[in-house]
Amino acid sequence: MKVIKFGGSSLASATQLKKVFQIVKEDSQRKVVVVSAPGKRSKADDKVTDLLIDCGTKALLNEAYQPVLVKIIARYEEMAVDLNLDLAIIDEIKRDLETLALGDKSQPDYFLDAFKASGENNNAKLIAAYFNHEGLEATYVNPMEAGLFVTDEPGNAQVLPESYERLYELRKQAGVLIVPGFFGYTKEGKLITFSRGGSDITGAILANGLQAELYENFTDVDAIYAANPNVVDKPQEIETLTYKEMRELSYAGFSVFHDEALYPAFKAGVPVQIKNTNNPHAVGTRIATTREKSPGAVVGIASSPGFSSIYIEKYLMNREIGFGRKMLEILEDAGLSYEHTPSGIDDLTVILRSNQLSESQENELLNRLKEDLHADKVVIQHNLALMMVVGEEMRCNVGTMAKASEALAEHGINIEMINQGSSEVSMMFGVQEVDEDKALKALYQAFFN
Amino acid sequence: MKVIKFGGSSLASATQLKKVFQIVKEDSQRKVVVVSAPGKRSKADDKVTDLLIDCGTKALLNEAYQPVLVKIIARYEEMAVDLNLDLAIIDEIKRDLETLALGDKSQPDYFLDAFKASGENNNAKLIAAYFNHEGLEATYVNPMEAGLFVTDEPGNAQVLPESYERLYELRKQAGVLIVPGFFGYTKEGKLITFSRGGSDITGAILANGLQAELYENFTDVDAIYAANPNVVDKPQEIETLTYKEMRELSYAGFSVFHDEALYPAFKAGVPVQIKNTNNPHAVGTRIATTREKSPGAVVGIASSPGFSSIYIEKYLMNREIGFGRKMLEILEDAGLSYEHTPSGIDDLTVILRSNQLSESQENELLNRLKEDLHADKVVIQHNLALMMVVGEEMRCNVGTMAKASEALAEHGINIEMINQGSSEVSMMFGVQEVDEDKALKALYQAFFN
Repeated sequence: MKVIKFGGSSLASATQLKKVFQIVKEDSQRKVVVVSAPGKRSKADDKVTDLLIDCGTKALLNEAYQPVLVKIIARYEEMAVDLNLDLAIIDEIKRDLETLALGDKSQPDYFLDAFKASGENNNAKLIAAYFNHEGLEATYVNPMEAGLFVTDEPGNAQVLPESYERLYELRKQAGVLIVPGFFGYTKEGKLITFSRGGSDITGAILANGLQAELYENFTDVDAIYAANPNVVDKPQEIETLTYKEMRELSYAGFSVFHDEALYPAFKAGVPVQIKNTNNPHAVGTRIATTREKSPGAVVGIASSPGFSSIYIEKYLMNREIGFGRKMLEILEDAGLSYEHTPSGIDDLTVILRSNQLSESQENELLNRLKEDLHADKVVIQHNLALMMVVGEEMRCNVGTMAKASEALAEHGINIEMINQGSSEVSMMFGVQEVDEDKALKALYQAFFN
Repeated sequence: MKVIKFGGSSLASATQLKKVFQIVKEDSQRKVVVVSAPGKRSKADDKVTDLLIDCGTKALLNEAYQPVLVKIIARYEEMAVDLNLDLAIIDEIKRDLETLALGDKSQPDYFLDAFKASGENNNAKLIAAYFNHEGLEATYVNPMEAGLFVTDEPGNAQVLPESYERLYELRKQAGVLIVPGFFGYTKEGKLITFSRGGSDITGAILANGLQAELYENFTDVDAIYAANPNVVDKPQEIETLTYKEMRELSYAGFSVFHDEALYPAFKAGVPVQIKNTNNPHAVGTRIATTREKSPGAVVGIASSPGFSSIYIEKYLMNREIGFGRKMLEILEDAGLSYEHTPSGIDDLTVILRSNQLSESQENELLNRLKEDLHADKVVIQHNLALMMVVGEEMRCNVGTMAKASEALAEHGINIEMINQGSSEVSMMFGVQEVDEDKALKALYQAFFN
C-alpha cells in the first residue's frame, strides 16, 4: 500500500488532474491520495492558497472580499467544467467558502487557518468527484474522521501521537481515499494548519499511520539534483539519498520540499519517492533510512547565502571553564539560534543566520558579548554563504576535503571557515556571498565531472 | 635595557656559567639576569629542583633527607670550586638549606615551596658572587626586595599588578642584577612559587615592570623549529613568530617553553628573543606582537595526541534553542574543559583532552548527555591527535587548506575532524593517533619543502 501526495502545480488545472488520475489508476497500490490546493497554472498565475489568505484577511478587516472569493470559486469551476463534472460540487464549494467568510472572527488565527485549509479541503472533494466520475471508486476523507489530531497551535500544528493508531483504520475502507493535506483538528474539534510544507506533512503522517510501503511525493521536477540547476548546468539527478543527507542538503538551500515535513515517514521507516507528475515514468529520487546504491562519496552540494559570523577573541579562552556556555547563554537571551561555533585556542566564531539580527540588536549583542565575557575583541562579518558538500560515505573517504578545498583554491575562492565534526555526513565551508555561485560550480565540477 | 633569562641547562656547571658570563658581559644592555636552578649536566643527571623536591618531601615525612641534602650542596660546591670562588658562598648555601629543612612543617605546601625555590635562590647568589669575582659588578636581588608580590596560591602564584611599578625602581640600581626565577612573596611575606615555566614567568614579569626593550630567553636550542625535530628531519628554524602563533603551536605540543609564562612580557609589548646559551651568536627566534618579516603563510606545524571526541546526534538539533548551552553545562558540571565543538545540522562533536576522563566518569557523562539532552546517539572516540597548521597570514591565502588536505590525502590519512573559525591563525585537523607522525611529516613536506 502506498500513500501518494500531489503538490499544487500537479493539481492546478484539468490537464494536470487528468495526469493525476492516470497515475493513481495505473497502480492499485496507490490507495491514499493526499492533495494540495490548486497551484499556479503559469508563472504569472495565483496559487489558490494565496488568494485564500488575501480573501480571508480582507474578510477579517471588513474589506470587500467578494471579488477575491469569486476568483477562487472560478478556479474550481474551470476545472469542473473542463472535466465535465456535475456542477453541484461547485455549489458545495461556494457555500463552504461563503460560510467560512461569515465565520467567527473573534480569534483571527483560527479564522484564517480554516479559510486557508479550504483550499486543500475543497480540492479533495472535487478530485474525489472527478475520480468517481471516471469510474474509479474514491472517497473524500476529512482529517477529523480519519483521526488526524494535532496540537492547538494555529499555523504550526504538531501531530498528536495517538493519531497514528486511528489512521491505521483507514486501511479498512474500500477504494481510493482522497485526503486534503495541510491541516488536522484539535481534540476539541478546532481546525489547525501545519507550517510550511503542510501537505507533505499530512502525507508523511498518513504514510506512518497506515504503515505504507512507500510514500510517493509527486511534484514538478524529475528528481532532486546534485546541485542547484539554476547555477550548475544540467546537474546530475540523485537516484537514492538517505534522509540524513537530504536534511543536510535542505538546510543549505535545496528547496524541492521542506525536509522536516517528511520526518513522520522517516520515523516509521517508510521510504519516500520523489516523482514528477508531468513525467511519471522518470525514476525520481528515493529517500530512505539507508542507501542501497552508492554512486560515490558525495551525493550533492548545496549552498545558502545570508549568514553572518561573530568572531570573539580572548586571551586564555581555552582555560576558562564555562566560557562557551556563557557565550551561548547571551545568544539564547537574545533569542538567537546559531548554526556553528568553530574555534581556535583563544577565539571562537559563531555562525548564525543574518535575518535574525536588526542593526540595533546587533550592536547590543556585540556590546554584551564584549562586556559580559570580557572579550579582547568582538567582530561581526556579514554576507557569508555556507556551502555544504554532502554524502554519508565521506566518512571513510580519504581525500574528499582535499578535492573540495583544491577546487575552491583553483578558482581563487578563499575559505572563510570550515566545520566538520565526527559525523562527516557533510563538510561545510563558509565563503563570501559574492563567491557563492562560483564556489558551487567549482565544487560540482570537482565531484561530478 | 634587556632582561635576560637562563634556563637550568645553561646553569648546570662551571662550563655553562662561563658561557653565561660571556653572554652577559658582551652586551651592556643586559642588565637584569633571571636565573633558574642548576639543571642536568647530562641525560642521566638530576635537576637540582628534583633533588630539592625529594629532599623536602623526605624532611616533611621525617625520613632521612641528609644524603640528598649533601648531594645538592655538592652541586653548588663543584661549580664554586671549578670557578675558583671563595667557598664562603657554599657555607651560606649550606646554612640556608639546613635552616629550610628544619622549618615549619605545619603547612606542607608552603614548606615545599620555600624548599624548591632555594634552587633558584642559591644559584642566583652563587652567580652574583662569580660575576663579581670576574670583575663585573653584580648584585643578587631577592624578589621580596624587588617588590615581586604574588597571590597566596602555593605552586600557582599569580603576580599582583602593583608589583610592576615597584619593579621599575630596579632600573635605578647600578650594575648587573641577578634575580632568582620561579617565586615571589605574598604581601604577608610568604614565599610562593609559580607554576611550571616558573623562571620564564619571573623574566616576563621583570621585562614588563622594567619596560625592557627586549626579553632574551636563553635555552639550549638554536631556535623554535617549524615542526618537532624528533619527527621531522632537520626542520626549518623559525626566525620570527607572533605571540598568537606561538600560543597555537604551544597548545599542540611545542614545548620549548610554556607560552603563558611569556604573557606579562607580551602584554607590555616587550618582544621575546629565544636564544641558545651554547651558540649565542645564532639568531634565534623572535616572538613579538606583530611580525615584521613574512617567511610564508604557514610558520609552523604542531601536533598533540591524547584527545577524545564525543559525538552527539539529535534530530532537529539545530532548531532547538539552548541545545549547545545545555550540553556545555553538563560538561561544566562534570568539571571538564573542552577544546572544540564542530557541528553538523543534527550533530555536535565535542573535542576534549582524554586525560580528564576516567572510565566511570566517562560512562556517567555519556549517560547524562544521552538522557538530559534526549539525544538519539552519543558516541565517544579515543586516541585522536590534533594537528595545528599555524600562521597569521593564512587568512588571506587562498589554497592553504587545499595544500594541507591534499598532503594528508596523498599519504592515505583520513581527516576525522576539521575546525577553522574566522581567525585563521590556525587550521586544526583531527586524525587518528596512529597517523600522527605520518601526518606531521606530510604537512611539513607540503608547506616547507
